[in-house]
Amino acid sequence: MDNTSLTTGGFTLPGEAGYEKLTLRLAQKWGADVIRDSDGTQLSNEIYTSGYDIYSTICVIRIDNEWAKANMDKLQQCCIMSKPIVAESKSVTIDLLNGYFREQFHINSDDDPKQWWQVFDRTTGREVPVDHWTFDPSAGSVTVRNTKKWHIYTVNFFAYRIWEEISMYNHVTNDWGEREHLMPIEPMHPETQEHILVYLEQWLGEHPNTNVVRLTSLFYNFWWFWGDSQKQRFIVNDWGSYEFTVNPLAIRKFEEKYGYRMTSEDFVNAGLYNNSYKVPSKKYRDWMDFINAFVVEFGRKCVDLIHAHGKKAFVFYNDHWIGMEPTGERFKDMALDGIIDGIFSGFETRKVAGTPHVEVRELRMHPYFFPTGVNNAPSFLQGGNPTLECKTYWMDIRRALLRDSVDRIGFGGYLHLVENHPDFIEYVVHLANEFRTLRSLHGNDKPYAPDFKIAILSAWGRLRAWGCCGHYNRGNYYNEAMESISGLPLHAEFISFEDILNQGIPSDIKVILNAGRVNDAWSGGDYWAQEKIIEALSEFIYNGGGFIGIGEPSALRHSSQYFQLCHVLGVDREIGLTRAFQRFEFDLVQTPHFILKDSDIISELDFGKDIDNIYVLDEATEVLAAREKSPMITTKQFGQGRSVYLSGYQFTPENVRLLHRAIFFAAQAEGQFETYTCRNVYTECAYYLNHCKLVVINNSDQTQDTLVTLEKGKTLKASLEPYGLQIIDV
Amino acid sequence: MDNTSLTTGGFTLPGEAGYEKLTLRLAQKWGADVIRDSDGTQLSNEIYTSGYDIYSTICVIRIDNEWAKANMDKLQQCCIMSKPIVAESKSVTIDLLNGYFREQFHINSDDDPKQWWQVFDRTTGREVPVDHWTFDPSAGSVTVRNTKKWHIYTVNFFAYRIWEEISMYNHVTNDWGEREHLMPIEPMHPETQEHILVYLEQWLGEHPNTNVVRLTSLFYNFWWFWGDSQKQRFIVNDWGSYEFTVNPLAIRKFEEKYGYRMTSEDFVNAGLYNNSYKVPSKKYRDWMDFINAFVVEFGRKCVDLIHAHGKKAFVFYNDHWIGMEPTGERFKDMALDGIIDGIFSGFETRKVAGTPHVEVRELRMHPYFFPTGVNNAPSFLQGGNPTLECKTYWMDIRRALLRDSVDRIGFGGYLHLVENHPDFIEYVVHLANEFRTLRSLHGNDKPYAPDFKIAILSAWGRLRAWGCCGHYNRGNYYNEAMESISGLPLHAEFISFEDILNQGIPSDIKVILNAGRVNDAWSGGDYWAQEKIIEALSEFIYNGGGFIGIGEPSALRHSSQYFQLCHVLGVDREIGLTRAFQRFEFDLVQTPHFILKDSDIISELDFGKDIDNIYVLDEATEVLAAREKSPMITTKQFGQGRSVYLSGYQFTPENVRLLHRAIFFAAQAEGQFETYTCRNVYTECAYYLNHCKLVVINNSDQTQDTLVTLEKGKTLKASLEPYGLQIIDV
Repeated sequence: MDNTSLTTGGFTLPGEAGYEKLTLRLAQKWGADVIRDSDGTQLSNEIYTSGYDIYSTICVIRIDNEWAKANMDKLQQCCIMSKPIVAESKSVTIDLLNGYFREQFHINSDDDPKQWWQVFDRTTGREVPVDHWTFDPSAGSVTVRNTKKWHIYTVNFFAYRIWEEISMYNHVTNDWGEREHLMPIEPMHPETQEHILVYLEQWLGEHPNTNVVRLTSLFYNFWWFWGDSQKQRFIVNDWGSYEFTVNPLAIRKFEEKYGYRMTSEDFVNAGLYNNSYKVPSKKYRDWMDFINAFVVEFGRKCVDLIHAHGKKAFVFYNDHWIGMEPTGERFKDMALDGIIDGIFSGFETRKVAGTPHVEVRELRMHPYFFPTGVNNAPSFLQGGNPTLECKTYWMDIRRALLRDSVDRIGFGGYLHLVENHPDFIEYVVHLANEFRTLRSLHGNDKPYAPDFKIAILSAWGRLRAWGCCGHYNRGNYYNEAMESISGLPLHAEFISFEDILNQGIPSDIKVILNAGRVNDAWSGGDYWAQEKIIEALSEFIYNGGGFIGIGEPSALRHSSQYFQLCHVLGVDREIGLTRAFQRFEFDLVQTPHFILKDSDIISELDFGKDIDNIYVLDEATEVLAAREKSPMITTKQFGQGRSVYLSGYQFTPENVRLLHRAIFFAAQAEGQFETYTCRNVYTECAYYLNHCKLVVINNSDQTQDTLVTLEKGKTLKASLEPYGLQIIDV
Repeated sequence: MDNTSLTTGGFTLPGEAGYEKLTLRLAQKWGADVIRDSDGTQLSNEIYTSGYDIYSTICVIRIDNEWAKANMDKLQQCCIMSKPIVAESKSVTIDLLNGYFREQFHINSDDDPKQWWQVFDRTTGREVPVDHWTFDPSAGSVTVRNTKKWHIYTVNFFAYRIWEEISMYNHVTNDWGEREHLMPIEPMHPETQEHILVYLEQWLGEHPNTNVVRLTSLFYNFWWFWGDSQKQRFIVNDWGSYEFTVNPLAIRKFEEKYGYRMTSEDFVNAGLYNNSYKVPSKKYRDWMDFINAFVVEFGRKCVDLIHAHGKKAFVFYNDHWIGMEPTGERFKDMALDGIIDGIFSGFETRKVAGTPHVEVRELRMHPYFFPTGVNNAPSFLQGGNPTLECKTYWMDIRRALLRDSVDRIGFGGYLHLVENHPDFIEYVVHLANEFRTLRSLHGNDKPYAPDFKIAILSAWGRLRAWGCCGHYNRGNYYNEAMESISGLPLHAEFISFEDILNQGIPSDIKVILNAGRVNDAWSGGDYWAQEKIIEALSEFIYNGGGFIGIGEPSALRHSSQYFQLCHVLGVDREIGLTRAFQRFEFDLVQTPHFILKDSDIISELDFGKDIDNIYVLDEATEVLAAREKSPMITTKQFGQGRSVYLSGYQFTPENVRLLHRAIFFAAQAEGQFETYTCRNVYTECAYYLNHCKLVVINNSDQTQDTLVTLEKGKTLKASLEPYGLQIIDV
């Protein structure tokens, strides 16, 4: 692959049959080397033979709807908890799909409900005996007898999914009207696998011009329940959850392998399901492992077939990505050639850039060429501003690309929609060239970073490295911190509590960050009741490590403290049960503190919705900022180590600088901080050592002057235009 | 008692020896009929013989410091949890009183520490075996061996209290310097009882001029730990907690009576102790019952002695009030003649007014004639404004006095401090007359109120009727709602979950209010996991009852819902674990709603710090107000009943009106609402049926015009001066 041209290559254009002239004109203008099709568009022979490499999309689990219709018992499923219903008498009848989008689900009574379903009294939390309820297939309802008056009841039931969700989304978004609803088939059935491989074989033969098969994606979509009401179009949408892998066949196969059976309630968990915010249970981690093994094994068969046809296999790292975590041990066994992800932000950029064992990493940029964006922006509709939208995302993506690189970028959707947006067409020329410039700097080079490593600690660890539970998770401290770190000159990694329990804290880690809310997977929930966790972290910090806690780090209602690391943090939280207690009255630290050194710019601290009712334990805690009596930034020396507490966090230029400084403070590496940093917080830079080139970027829509500190304290001034980038020989 | 004069009587003046002229001048000016002494002041013969009735204070547990010094093993005690200490090696030494005010406590090792104390590993929550620790009496420390590195350890130990807290407070506040520290003696010892009775007998003989013995108060002070640091002068201060009744002797006697032994941890509860916010456990309720029985029994002996000397016995309903709950069954057995309370607010006024089985109910007004008030106001110091202070409290007290009456008011402290505040002297004339006017209206009469009853539901029930955990509890929804209701024309009572479990919901209750935060005693905590509670309340509402929930009503992490009455309320709360879920999008109710009818005045809803992340379950919930996507006021029909949810609440004129309307809405008594209410929310009124008199008050510092609706829809206009009161014949 030629990664050296700064004007062509590394760019994937969505072509569109019927718009051949536009396709080829923009391919040239944007320096594309690849043309692709998208869901809802096709390429034509004129495009196929135009000399560009061709990516062809295929979604193997929804491509053959005839087979799906003939094998309705082999559709993908899920387990659903019916909406809670109050029993007003001695029995209650529950319409199972009430509230759910009936075009998405079909109740599965092929697998005996009495064996697979569970009914719960959710007032007590207890299961209702199987002989107290009956299923009426014609009504799609369950009647529970011997109910207790005024208790609420729910049914966990299995349902086939009769409209594949990504296709459904595209269908609804683009008003596809009467077009047939595609259905997802379940690859766990041997018959389905056989059919998929036969179909794929034939499809490959029918696509002689295709260079790269763009799997969009593999088999299992992320979890996405739709609602019946226009007032609740989506019930839940979790990019990280395996709930769409669940069905009786898989449960049986799991039981054969792991020796125990998962119940419907193991997936429903009283309505929490296994959403990304829930600390994953041992059972659920086993389930993920089981699905991962299956996805890799059958995925490899698909990839082998693609390779046998002389084509490359790329996978779209979204949609049906479930079970192929690139951070897992098995990912390499799939032998994929490339990975592509539709992204908006820096953390997602790092996710793609960090994917191992593939040759090509590609970012699919936004906006998607659809009338409406996934973020509900009007994008290419009247009132949309696709250029500004694209530029806004690019600011966050670009700063991550300073730190780690990808090989390609591209777009997707209906190309003809851009035709009436000439400014967008011009902006993409600029963006593509800027991307190629950054890419070239990573060639045989790495940007400068200090000599220590930061680890982000959560219950997920590497399974959510540079990931959370979807594109947008504003207000999630873990996500906001991760987004910030994605563009900072730091060696970062992700560890889990299980990692610490099994292997301890790796010796190359200098700072650990824990950010979340009580009981959530990002903070860690019940793991904080494990003494080994407290011991390992205390020891690490006491011996010189750094700890940064954001929001409710180490929080759990357990024993006498709420922050289980309060002895390290020097702060704890009043949760409403000890309001008769008066707390130590702190004074703000008066001397300028390293963490707040750029506070001439940080005029007003804004952590978004942060945690209140924080109090300090005693005078050993230094308070740098507070709102009323609740500290917002504190530090404490613990043995030879240091802790920093932040009451909240959101991704803003000011806070990125504050976090950057906090990390260096916690690492006791203040002396290393100035080198290759910009004074102006709206600007950032990266220094590529072999190229001797400094890249300075302006993350704002205003002109910015900045001062960059080089090595040995030398400085350099730069003035950057709005959104600008400068490359300076140093 | 003559309750008819509007210019004299019903007024208690604090006299001061050395200021006899002032004493007698003000006694006449303020229309006093009683002169009292205070802690720190004495009366003189001139005052005793001036023709006024005399109240003489005595605090029997601190009056004879010589006896206390000679019986240091019979001082009152408490159980303390030492400050958590991290073990940095295989042993840790804990200075027990570290952080605590060493002048308040003396470690009790007379009762064998090995038998009475407990050491805990607070990292795990487990107790440390007794043979792993030793107490060093000379150092006042415990050394724990075989500690786990980095775990935190605490010791529950018993300590004598060597400075009686109220006296300590007065001593410190008034700079009494070298004056001897008074110590509280423990009346549970038979020797102490005997001494107290002998002393009291003698004291009574020495006070021939005393008409009323003002017990200030009985035996056990509310819980008040002081801290060592000026930065943490008070560690905890809870008016409702029995922690100062705890000692080994009492525990042994309790065991004899109840058949089981309380441990130190039953009182410490991992640092929560038995503070008022904690849902009282069965054990703690037993303990309260045990102390109550003792206080009443020994209290009666003191009262009998007082009566035998021809004097009356009044008790100060504050300070050492613990164990004499007037709402308890035994209170009448004490045969007290009167009750006096130092108060600031409406709910406290109702507490005094509602005290049964006494002849005289008296309010001790604020400011206390001290340089500094208990609320830290400078009061009579430079910069203080005692008139405004007094007026502000009176506004809240007065509205409660519209609804229920007391017999007397009075002041306390150093009388000479008022001398330089002539405006205060004049204001008290006005206040006293206003009090007498209101009192006269209650003579053979009751103010108009609708025909239904509201019950406030908490884990405390009647044990905290018109009480909470001290004078000031701003931000506590229960307290804010109770303060509001104290001045509304309503029949209100207090019920507990135990009441509902034992007797069901009384048939005369039309509306139940539950206000609090998750897990606290006001909301109810674990009681919400009891199905009988859910059943009883659901049934009550379904059959036509009303339910008002404020903040986190019925909240508990239990089963699939957080608000355990979400089926009634129609709302629930997102607590950070289901953020991937999208919630039903509500529209605000567009037609003017009864609850918001005075919203021309309610310009901006301000519930103080309210509960966020509320969501509605479905379209059956009506949303009247919301902030962003989180509803603030909702209603729902449930069967024949109605619920109202408020996301928070604070006592303001606007919110009082809103709550008033919400109660009538929940009661389905909208038709009764207008009668005898004022249109202007800064004004309120009461109609006395037999007197045919309407009292209209202005609760603001501005002139207010208002319109009062009378019976049969007739109206009446009134214009009131700032803080004004008008009496209108109707």
